[in-house]
Amino acid sequence: MRNYSTQMEAARKGIITPELEIVAKKERMTTEELLPLVASGKVAICANKNHKCIDPEGVGSMLRTKINVNLGVSRDCKDYDVEMQKVMEAVNMGAHAIMDLSSHGNTIPFRRKLTSECPAMIGTVPVYDSVIHYQRDLDTLTAKDFIDVVRLHAQDGVDFVTLHCGITRKTIDQIRNHKRKMNIVSRGGSLVFAWMCMTGEENPFYEYYDEILDICREYDVTISLGDACRPGCLADATDVCQIEELVRLGELTKRAWEKDVQVMVEGPGHVPLDQVEANMKVQQSICQGAPFYVLGPIVTDVAPGYDHITSAIGGAVAAMSGAAFLCYVTPAEHLALPNLEDVKQGIMASKIAAHAADIAKGVRGAREIDDKMADARRKLDWEAQWECAMDPETAKRIWNERKPEHEDTCSMCGKFCAVRSMNKALAGEHIDIL
Amino acid sequence: MRNYSTQMEAARKGIITPELEIVAKKERMTTEELLPLVASGKVAICANKNHKCIDPEGVGSMLRTKINVNLGVSRDCKDYDVEMQKVMEAVNMGAHAIMDLSSHGNTIPFRRKLTSECPAMIGTVPVYDSVIHYQRDLDTLTAKDFIDVVRLHAQDGVDFVTLHCGITRKTIDQIRNHKRKMNIVSRGGSLVFAWMCMTGEENPFYEYYDEILDICREYDVTISLGDACRPGCLADATDVCQIEELVRLGELTKRAWEKDVQVMVEGPGHVPLDQVEANMKVQQSICQGAPFYVLGPIVTDVAPGYDHITSAIGGAVAAMSGAAFLCYVTPAEHLALPNLEDVKQGIMASKIAAHAADIAKGVRGAREIDDKMADARRKLDWEAQWECAMDPETAKRIWNERKPEHEDTCSMCGKFCAVRSMNKALAGEHIDIL
Repeated sequence: MRNYSTQMEAARKGIITPELEIVAKKERMTTEELLPLVASGKVAICANKNHKCIDPEGVGSMLRTKINVNLGVSRDCKDYDVEMQKVMEAVNMGAHAIMDLSSHGNTIPFRRKLTSECPAMIGTVPVYDSVIHYQRDLDTLTAKDFIDVVRLHAQDGVDFVTLHCGITRKTIDQIRNHKRKMNIVSRGGSLVFAWMCMTGEENPFYEYYDEILDICREYDVTISLGDACRPGCLADATDVCQIEELVRLGELTKRAWEKDVQVMVEGPGHVPLDQVEANMKVQQSICQGAPFYVLGPIVTDVAPGYDHITSAIGGAVAAMSGAAFLCYVTPAEHLALPNLEDVKQGIMASKIAAHAADIAKGVRGAREIDDKMADARRKLDWEAQWECAMDPETAKRIWNERKPEHEDTCSMCGKFCAVRSMNKALAGEHIDIL
Repeated sequence: MRNYSTQMEAARKGIITPELEIVAKKERMTTEELLPLVASGKVAICANKNHKCIDPEGVGSMLRTKINVNLGVSRDCKDYDVEMQKVMEAVNMGAHAIMDLSSHGNTIPFRRKLTSECPAMIGTVPVYDSVIHYQRDLDTLTAKDFIDVVRLHAQDGVDFVTLHCGITRKTIDQIRNHKRKMNIVSRGGSLVFAWMCMTGEENPFYEYYDEILDICREYDVTISLGDACRPGCLADATDVCQIEELVRLGELTKRAWEKDVQVMVEGPGHVPLDQVEANMKVQQSICQGAPFYVLGPIVTDVAPGYDHITSAIGGAVAAMSGAAFLCYVTPAEHLALPNLEDVKQGIMASKIAAHAADIAKGVRGAREIDDKMADARRKLDWEAQWECAMDPETAKRIWNERKPEHEDTCSMCGKFCAVRSMNKALAGEHIDIL
């Protein structure tokens, strides 16, 4: 039997867990390098004891940037097997985590299927599962009901839970007085807010935080501290509602770490590009280096249908500036439930943002594949290019679809191909363009 | 008759041209604010005297970021009318400039069609039109042949010409010795390089720069100083080949301005995200604030099929840090001639990058539309949202395709919609989720 409760406790005791060993290898680190990062909370290894099939990953700003994909059973997609297929495809495409946002029917079987079959980190948001789980309206639920769902998820093997612990009754007045354009756009946050308004009680996730910590410690569930007040439009970015909540999340981070409970902190949202870096630095400072998990950030509000791109821009800059974990955003964001093609586009955009950031911050080995691609391009070796491509099928399809006039080039430039001209010029050969 | 040759000369003489007046209005500036920027070269108003139908735009880092779309008649698309339709669609989608990269047949009629019918700025690359124009192999062309094509384009009403003046015979040794991974990836640059290798002569665009300036002055053609040595992969970024050429472009900028000829400077290329800002600052300093026109930058080499996204990331950061003009990149980059859908995706990605940057650097009025969108979202007013959207058709289609359970939300969250919950909570209403 293991003589530690959480990965953090193990690291603090100097125990090299099997998970830490795997993560170190993946990140090209020694266990000696990684151990103090887990001990101090700068890296979270989200791995519930009951998630036996997990292929562990570390989340931290000095590691490769990780990406999360939201899926789940809903009114529109009730078939567990179909949804499970989407999950496995997402993992194959490079998702490091799957958040199960199921919002229909009995959510237990799908969640347990995930933690018994899926090797990626599994995350959930217990507050919206509560409504579904009990099949009762929000205002009839008690604080104990919510905590019981957190325990259920922990027992089911969920690796991280988003809990909106950072808002309190004071937030109600603040939101009313501050007159934000978008109030609260976090789904979970809005439910907690509405519950407080309707019941007159304090936020149960804040009030019973110690009980929650005990549950999380027992199963090694990482708390992902939700940012209920994340800005939902550029105008609300970096405002007092957001920053005051962040300060509270910093305090809650410290309380979790005192009990060896691992923590991630969630972040914006909609942020103008010039404020992204500052947001990351403030979070890193206030939350003492706890891994930052951002949703976007989206750098303009006016591109619905293209928010995988608006968030790739924000996400790349965020990850370069300190964010450790990117939640994907699909082209259907703000508009509809994403279909499979949207999921794919969202994953690709997030992977690009993550990889660009990893290169920029010098994560070990990140640029090797780019250098290989450059060599393949110089040699006009198309097979080698497909091997380096993030999505070889798509690249190959585009190239094949519009056949080049000469096999050694592509139809974009044909004989005007600069690579071809340079190779010939440097070899002292004659160049035929016509 | 006008008593000035170029917009720059007019501004230096204190003359407010009709074009300057229009640009000032578009940028919400007074003519008094804009005039010194044109006089000093920080803003270029690319408007050939013979392009009568132009709707003038200014290019400069303190103005709205402009975007360029490459089109043109090619072996695969020989029909002038079809290509002209693409041009007008691109302009409708928001392109401020069209570069005519025609590479097939008689290029004169299409170019003249553009400058007599298209209101956007028209740019060309005379070096590759030369091969097509004379229908002779590259090494048989003389320096005079190249200059004559520049004159022809000027007479035809082209607003800006990309000229690779910055490489010289010294560059041949430098490229050989420096052992870049991708040598030269600029099509025009590779042709000039190959021509020098084959003929043993000096770069005609450098040697006869004064003659070129006289032509450009006569018709008010803006010179877009091509960066032959722009990096074609991350490994080559910000290297000595690139920076030495930039230094020469700075000298050539000064020589152009001495003759009142307007200048833009072209830039990378493939650049790691952490080097993008530095590249912009160095260019701004070396080229004394001349507008920077960037191709990308692309922030990873391994995403063929998605380079509209890799370049949106680089382009947004570049424009925020000083670039004035973004050349679009399509998903087909590195793979094939873009089709109409690729052109659309490329334009949208560039528009997003440009707009995000304009908001970030506080360009006047840039964020107004985002604030309007936020108000529409808070009110769950879908019609108002479509009015603010960059691409209303696409957004509306996605929303409609997957009908929400309640008309006031969207199918992404349904009754879990945070906006709906918050509006009800703040109004003291009961919230029904089930």
